[in-house]
Amino acid sequence: MPTYKAPLEDVSFLLNDVFQIDRYNNLPGFSDASADVRAAILNEAAKFSEQVLQPLNSVGDLEGCTRHDDGRVTTPSGFKNAFKQMGEGGWLGLSGPAEFGGQGLPATLSQVVNEFMISANMAFSLYPALTQGAMATLLVYGTPEQKQTFVPNMMAGKWAGTMNLTEPQCGTDLGLLRTKAVKQTDGTYKITGTKIFISGGEQDLTENIIHLVLARIEGAPAGIKGISLFAVPKMTIKLDGSLAGPNGVSCGSIEHKMGIHGNSTCVLNFDNAVGTLVSQENKGMSAMFVMMNGARLGVGVQGLAQSEVAYQNAAIYARERLQGRALTGSQAKDKPADPIIIHPDVRCTLMTIRAFNEAARALVVWTSLKSDLAHRSDDAKEREAADDHMGLLTPVVKALLTDIGFANAVSAQQMFGGHGYIAETGVEQFVRDARIAMIYEGANGIQALDLVGRKLGRDGGRAITAFVNEVSTFSKDNAANEAIAPYISPLGASIKDLQQSTMWLMQNGLAKPDNAGAASTDYLHLFGLVALGYMWARMAKVAQDKLAEAGEQPNLKAKLVTGKFFMERMLPETSLRLSRIQAGAASMMELPAEAF
Amino acid sequence: MPTYKAPLEDVSFLLNDVFQIDRYNNLPGFSDASADVRAAILNEAAKFSEQVLQPLNSVGDLEGCTRHDDGRVTTPSGFKNAFKQMGEGGWLGLSGPAEFGGQGLPATLSQVVNEFMISANMAFSLYPALTQGAMATLLVYGTPEQKQTFVPNMMAGKWAGTMNLTEPQCGTDLGLLRTKAVKQTDGTYKITGTKIFISGGEQDLTENIIHLVLARIEGAPAGIKGISLFAVPKMTIKLDGSLAGPNGVSCGSIEHKMGIHGNSTCVLNFDNAVGTLVSQENKGMSAMFVMMNGARLGVGVQGLAQSEVAYQNAAIYARERLQGRALTGSQAKDKPADPIIIHPDVRCTLMTIRAFNEAARALVVWTSLKSDLAHRSDDAKEREAADDHMGLLTPVVKALLTDIGFANAVSAQQMFGGHGYIAETGVEQFVRDARIAMIYEGANGIQALDLVGRKLGRDGGRAITAFVNEVSTFSKDNAANEAIAPYISPLGASIKDLQQSTMWLMQNGLAKPDNAGAASTDYLHLFGLVALGYMWARMAKVAQDKLAEAGEQPNLKAKLVTGKFFMERMLPETSLRLSRIQAGAASMMELPAEAF
Repeated sequence: MPTYKAPLEDVSFLLNDVFQIDRYNNLPGFSDASADVRAAILNEAAKFSEQVLQPLNSVGDLEGCTRHDDGRVTTPSGFKNAFKQMGEGGWLGLSGPAEFGGQGLPATLSQVVNEFMISANMAFSLYPALTQGAMATLLVYGTPEQKQTFVPNMMAGKWAGTMNLTEPQCGTDLGLLRTKAVKQTDGTYKITGTKIFISGGEQDLTENIIHLVLARIEGAPAGIKGISLFAVPKMTIKLDGSLAGPNGVSCGSIEHKMGIHGNSTCVLNFDNAVGTLVSQENKGMSAMFVMMNGARLGVGVQGLAQSEVAYQNAAIYARERLQGRALTGSQAKDKPADPIIIHPDVRCTLMTIRAFNEAARALVVWTSLKSDLAHRSDDAKEREAADDHMGLLTPVVKALLTDIGFANAVSAQQMFGGHGYIAETGVEQFVRDARIAMIYEGANGIQALDLVGRKLGRDGGRAITAFVNEVSTFSKDNAANEAIAPYISPLGASIKDLQQSTMWLMQNGLAKPDNAGAASTDYLHLFGLVALGYMWARMAKVAQDKLAEAGEQPNLKAKLVTGKFFMERMLPETSLRLSRIQAGAASMMELPAEAF
Repeated sequence: MPTYKAPLEDVSFLLNDVFQIDRYNNLPGFSDASADVRAAILNEAAKFSEQVLQPLNSVGDLEGCTRHDDGRVTTPSGFKNAFKQMGEGGWLGLSGPAEFGGQGLPATLSQVVNEFMISANMAFSLYPALTQGAMATLLVYGTPEQKQTFVPNMMAGKWAGTMNLTEPQCGTDLGLLRTKAVKQTDGTYKITGTKIFISGGEQDLTENIIHLVLARIEGAPAGIKGISLFAVPKMTIKLDGSLAGPNGVSCGSIEHKMGIHGNSTCVLNFDNAVGTLVSQENKGMSAMFVMMNGARLGVGVQGLAQSEVAYQNAAIYARERLQGRALTGSQAKDKPADPIIIHPDVRCTLMTIRAFNEAARALVVWTSLKSDLAHRSDDAKEREAADDHMGLLTPVVKALLTDIGFANAVSAQQMFGGHGYIAETGVEQFVRDARIAMIYEGANGIQALDLVGRKLGRDGGRAITAFVNEVSTFSKDNAANEAIAPYISPLGASIKDLQQSTMWLMQNGLAKPDNAGAASTDYLHLFGLVALGYMWARMAKVAQDKLAEAGEQPNLKAKLVTGKFFMERMLPETSLRLSRIQAGAASMMELPAEAF
C-alpha cells in the first residue's frame, strides 16, 4: 500500500528561507500567518492529508462513483465524512475573506495545503478545488446577494461548486456552445442544454451544489462574444436561505475514466433550470477566466503533487527492494542482494523526479506569492507587475508541471518493475490519476498557444521582459560568487536560449503564425525549464549561505546536490528545445490532411 | 470506437524497396516467400487482425479474465474462437520448421504479422507470443522427444506455452530464485515453488499448457549458476500423446492490472509438478535466453504496434474534430469550425509519432532480417555478423521502441482532449496496454545495462564497430548526393555523438562502473536515435530514387517530408543525450540512501 508524508521541511525552507514570506507582513492576512501560525496550520494539513485523505485514495479508485437510476450519485466510502471534516476544519476558506466565513490567510498557504491534499488523494481534492474556484468567481463577479447566499455555505463545506463549460461539440472552442438561457420576467434565467465532463456535477457530499454555467442568452451574438455566466443551484433556495425543491438539473450519466475514479465526472442535463446572471450579459468568458486561471495553477499543483507522492513511494521501494549487486561490488553483504538504490540508473530516476519536484514547488510558491501581491498589495505598480507574472506563468505552471509530473509518475512506476503494473501496489493509480491534469482546464497544447499567442506579446512584451531581467540580474549579481558558480553559469546559458527563442518568435511568428504554433510547446517547456533553473539557483544560494553560516546540515547538502544534478542533466534540454523552435513549421505543414 | 488498418503499403515499401528481401532467395524459406506469396499472407494477416482481433480488443479490456474458485481461468468472450482461428490459419507456425508443422517462412515475415496482431489486440497477442517463445526454446534446447511431443501441438494452437521466471522475491535478479526441482528415479523432476506474473499461466484457450519453468535442482550451486530449465505440462501426457490427469500446477490467483486485461497474469503454484529437463542441469539461464531474446524483440514490436494504432486513431480524430480556427484564417468556411489537423501543434504531435513509427518499423524489419541471416545463412562470417547485430540491437529495439511507443500513445491520447480520458473512445486503453512493454522481459533500465555493460564491449567491440562503420559508410557514399543532403548531414552529426559517447564510456566506464550505469539509459536512447536516423536516411534515398524514376507519388513524397521532420526535430536529441552521458555519475551517487 502506498504511503505519503507531507514535505513540511521543504515547504518551510521555501516559505521562511527562500521567499522569506515574513517580508510581506504589510499585506492583509500575512501578519496573521506568522511563522508559528503557518507551522501549526501546515502540521494540521499534513495530518489531515496523511491520516484522513490518503487512506481513502485507493478506496476511491477501487469503488469509484455510482449513479443510481434516480440520478443520484454516491461517492466512495469515507468521502462524505472527509468532506465534512474539510468544511469543519476551515480548509475550504483558508484564504477566503473573513466577511464570508474565511480565514483571510495568504493564498500561498492555500496552495501549499492543496499540494498536500492532492498528493494524498487527487480524486477527492477535486471536490473542494472546484468549490474554491466557484467561490473565487462569485466573490469577484457575483452580486451582493449571490455572494451572501452562496459563499458562506460553500466556505463551510455545506454546499459545493462546479464549473460547466464543455459540451459534446465544444471543449477548447467555447464559441460553439449551444446551452441556452431565456430571461424571465423576474430577472432570472431558464437554462437548457447538456454539459459534459462536469467534475463533481452530482454527488452525495453536500446538500446543495452551485453550478456555474456558461450559456447563450436568446438573441445573443454568435461565438465567444455571446456567452454569459450563470449560477444554477441544484436545489432552489428560498428567500430565507433554506432549500426548496430540486431545480431543473440532473445527472444523465457518469463517465468511466482512466483514473480519478473517486471523482464523479457527470453529464449534466439542464432543463429550464432557474439560474441567476453572474457578471453582465455576454461577459461570461471573462468571468469564467477568474475561475480558470485559479484552476490552472491548481491543476499545475496536481502534476507536482502526483510526482511527489510517486517519488516518495519509489524511494521507499528502492531502499527496500533487494535485487542484484552494485556494479562496484556488493554493498549489503549480509543480505541476499543489495537494495536497488545502489544502482546509478535507479538514482538517476529518483534524482530527476526530486530535482523537478523541489523546483516546481518553489515555482508554485513564487507564483502564489505573486497572486497574493496582485490581489492584496496597495501599490498599483506592484500589483501590475505581479499580475504580469501571473499571466505569463499560469500556462507554464499548468502545462509544464502536469507534463513532467505525469512523466515522473511513469518513471516512479517503472522502478517497481512488474509490481508497479498491478493495482495492489497503488503506484499505477498515480499514473492514471496524473494523466488527466495534462488534459483538463485547457489541454497543455492550448496552454502553449496561450503563452506564445497571447501572453508573450501582451503590453509590448512587458511580462517576459521583466522575467528575463529578473533572472539575468540574479545571474549577474551572483556571477562573482564562486560557491554557486555551478548553478549560475548553466542558468546563464539557458536564459540565452530563452532570449534567442523569444527573438526568433518575434521575427518569425508574427509574419507566419504557423511558426508560432509550431514552436509553442517547445517554447513553453524551454521557458519552464529556465523558470525551474532560476528556482534552483535561488535555492542553491540560500542553501549555500545557510551552510556557510550554520555548518553541515544534510538537508541543505541534499539541496545543493539535487540542484547540481538539475543543472547538469535537466536544464541543458533548453538548447534542444531552441533547435526545434528554430526548425519552424514547414515540415509539419507540408502534407495534406489526407496524408495523415 | 477505435479502428485499425494494417500498414500494408509501408510494409511493402520496406520489404520490397528498402531491404529488397528477394536478394535473400538463397536462404531456406525465402524463395517460398516470393513477392506474391508475401502479399497474400500479409493481406490475410491484415484481414484477420482488423476483422477478428481488433473488435475483441475493448471486449478484452472491459471483461478481463476471471479466475473461478476451482482455479480455472476464463478469458474474455471471443478469445477462444480467435485463438482457434490462429492455430487453424497456421499463424503460430508461420516461420516454424516444416518438420513440426510450421511453414518455414522468414522470421521477418512473422514479425511484420506480429505487429498487425498486436496493434489489433495486444492482450490477446500475448497468448500466441509466449507460445512461440516456448516453441523456439524447445526447438533449440529440447530433447527429440520433447520437440515431438510438444511442438506440433503448440504450432497447431492446440497447446500453449508460458515462461516462468519471476518469483515474489526475484525478477531481475534470478539468482535469488527458490523454486525447487527434485530428480526422480525415472529421470523426471518434481517441481515445487511459486511463480508470479505468468502471462497466460492459466486460460481456457487450449487443452494443455507447456510451462517452461526455471528452478533449482536440490544441491545445485547458489545464484545464477544453479538454475535449470524444465518443461512442465499443465496436463500430464501419456506415451501415446493423449492427455492424462492434471499435473501439480495450479493458478492461485490472477492479478488486477493497469492494462492488458484480456491476458491472464497468474500466480502459479507448483506442488510436486512433474517436469522434464530442457537443456542440461544448471544451464537453464542460457536456454531461457533463447526465449528472452526473441521475446525482447517481440516486446519492442509491441511498443511500435501500440504507437501505430494510437496514431491512426488520433489522425482520424484530428481530421474530423471541428474546433477553433486556423491561426492563418478559417480553412473550412462552410463548417462551424476547422478540423484540428490545421493546427501546427496537432500536426507536430502526429508527425512526431509517425516519424517514429515508420523508422521503428524499418528497424524491426532490418533486425528481423539479421535474425533470419543468423539462423539460416550458410556463411559463417555472415552468421557471425548478423548475430553481432542482433545482440547489439535487441536491447535497443526492446527499450527504445517501448519507451517511445508508450510516450506516443500518451501524445495520441492528448489529442482527444477530455474524450481521450474516458473509456468510451478506447484510446486510453492503448496507453494502459502499452505501459507494460517498458517493464516486462527485462525492464528498460536493465536493457540499457545489458547494452552498455555487456553488448558494447563483447568481442572487443566488434558489433558496435560494425554498426558505426555501416552508418558512416552510408553517409560517406551519399555525401555527394544533394537530393538527400537534408538526411545525410544530420545523420553524420548524430553518428559523431554516438562515437563520442562510446569513447567516453570506454574511457570513464571501465575504471568507474557507476559512470557506465549512470550513462546507460541516455546511451541506449542516443544509440536508438542514430539507428532510427539511419533507417530514415535509407528510406529517404530509396524514396528519392523512386520519385526520380517514376515521378510524383504522394506516399513517397510523404516519406521524404516525414524523414525531414525526423532529422530536424527528433534526431538532434542525440546531443542532449551526449551531454548527459558526459555529466557522469557523481551528482547522482553523492547522497546517502536515506536522503532519498
